[in-house]
Amino acid sequence: MEFSSKLLENAVYEMSQLPGVGKRTALRLVLHLLKQPQGQTERLAKSLESLRKEIKFCSNCHNISDVALCEICANPKRDQSLVCVVEDIRDVMAIENTSQYNGLYHVLGGKISPMEGIGPQDLSIQSLVEKVKSGVVRELIFAMSSTMEGDTTNFYIYKQIQDQELTTSTIARGIAVGDELEFADEITLGRSIVQRIPFETSLKANG
Amino acid sequence: MEFSSKLLENAVYEMSQLPGVGKRTALRLVLHLLKQPQGQTERLAKSLESLRKEIKFCSNCHNISDVALCEICANPKRDQSLVCVVEDIRDVMAIENTSQYNGLYHVLGGKISPMEGIGPQDLSIQSLVEKVKSGVVRELIFAMSSTMEGDTTNFYIYKQIQDQELTTSTIARGIAVGDELEFADEITLGRSIVQRIPFETSLKANG
Repeated sequence: MEFSSKLLENAVYEMSQLPGVGKRTALRLVLHLLKQPQGQTERLAKSLESLRKEIKFCSNCHNISDVALCEICANPKRDQSLVCVVEDIRDVMAIENTSQYNGLYHVLGGKISPMEGIGPQDLSIQSLVEKVKSGVVRELIFAMSSTMEGDTTNFYIYKQIQDQELTTSTIARGIAVGDELEFADEITLGRSIVQRIPFETSLKANG
Repeated sequence: MEFSSKLLENAVYEMSQLPGVGKRTALRLVLHLLKQPQGQTERLAKSLESLRKEIKFCSNCHNISDVALCEICANPKRDQSLVCVVEDIRDVMAIENTSQYNGLYHVLGGKISPMEGIGPQDLSIQSLVEKVKSGVVRELIFAMSSTMEGDTTNFYIYKQIQDQELTTSTIARGIAVGDELEFADEITLGRSIVQRIPFETSLKANG
């Protein structure tokens, strides 16, 4: 693409560095901004800059937070001995939306992925292991995505804490509520049979 | 969506104001930026801000340009009496890419669209009419998209200059080069038959 303006070219280039945004989309977005009031572009630029500069993470769970101890960790009504290990803030938001969980989180900030050059030292695993070893954790729930990388990360953490006295669990995998059995993939269906639960338990879960 | 950080919420909100970017995509993009070096976010913010602030338009064709008279308008080798009317800079770039056009452009900056509240006064139509009336234009080529809005815009301009002495034309519509006839839509195929051209002319166009 040849641009008639260096300013335009720069903006399109930087925009196209975002994941899933090609040159054409970047040009469309930038031209859209040009048609909007100048304030919109300024607000977008300012909000991104200040987020990147002033971003803070909760000292306990490593979730993005504006204060040193996030709202969840600071809440005395939440079970401090129950810790759910997740990949990033999106998982925290998803679980919080269910209103079914009353424990704390531990945000790893990614998963072990040799392909992308992400090793255990790039994630907040060390602080999790220390937290477990200090004895405050009664149960650790692994809620990583069920991919090769997620399983590897779970297993890596598990190996480091398996000699500690605590319960470890993973979230249940199975047919989604409301889904038809015939359309489920075999692995999920197989797992949901092997890991079946007592009928009385399911009745309780339904409300 | 409930966010654990006001900074994050702001950034996601501003990002989601872009066309085609929902809240989830915005969150994904913002989290991506957080994982990248701080410089990337700064460059993105700076480039958008300076584009929006320092943007200039060519005084002759209204295309985005860093100088008062864009490279195309300032090129003495180009035919100054041939003007192609287009919607925005993307159309200029597309036509320039063909290397088949040696005239100038006139960028309207949009098309007449009552639905979106865009009237003739929002586009650079007045300066085009003046340019035509000054007598420097020998031929005006309408290259707007063939939609209701594009046709309306073409017609609106045509009505204002029809008493002037100049040739007006529109770009040819027809089956794309390399396309099979059986898959073409009826309107395009119909037009390509009605507006057929002498075989000798097509031989010349092929090179």
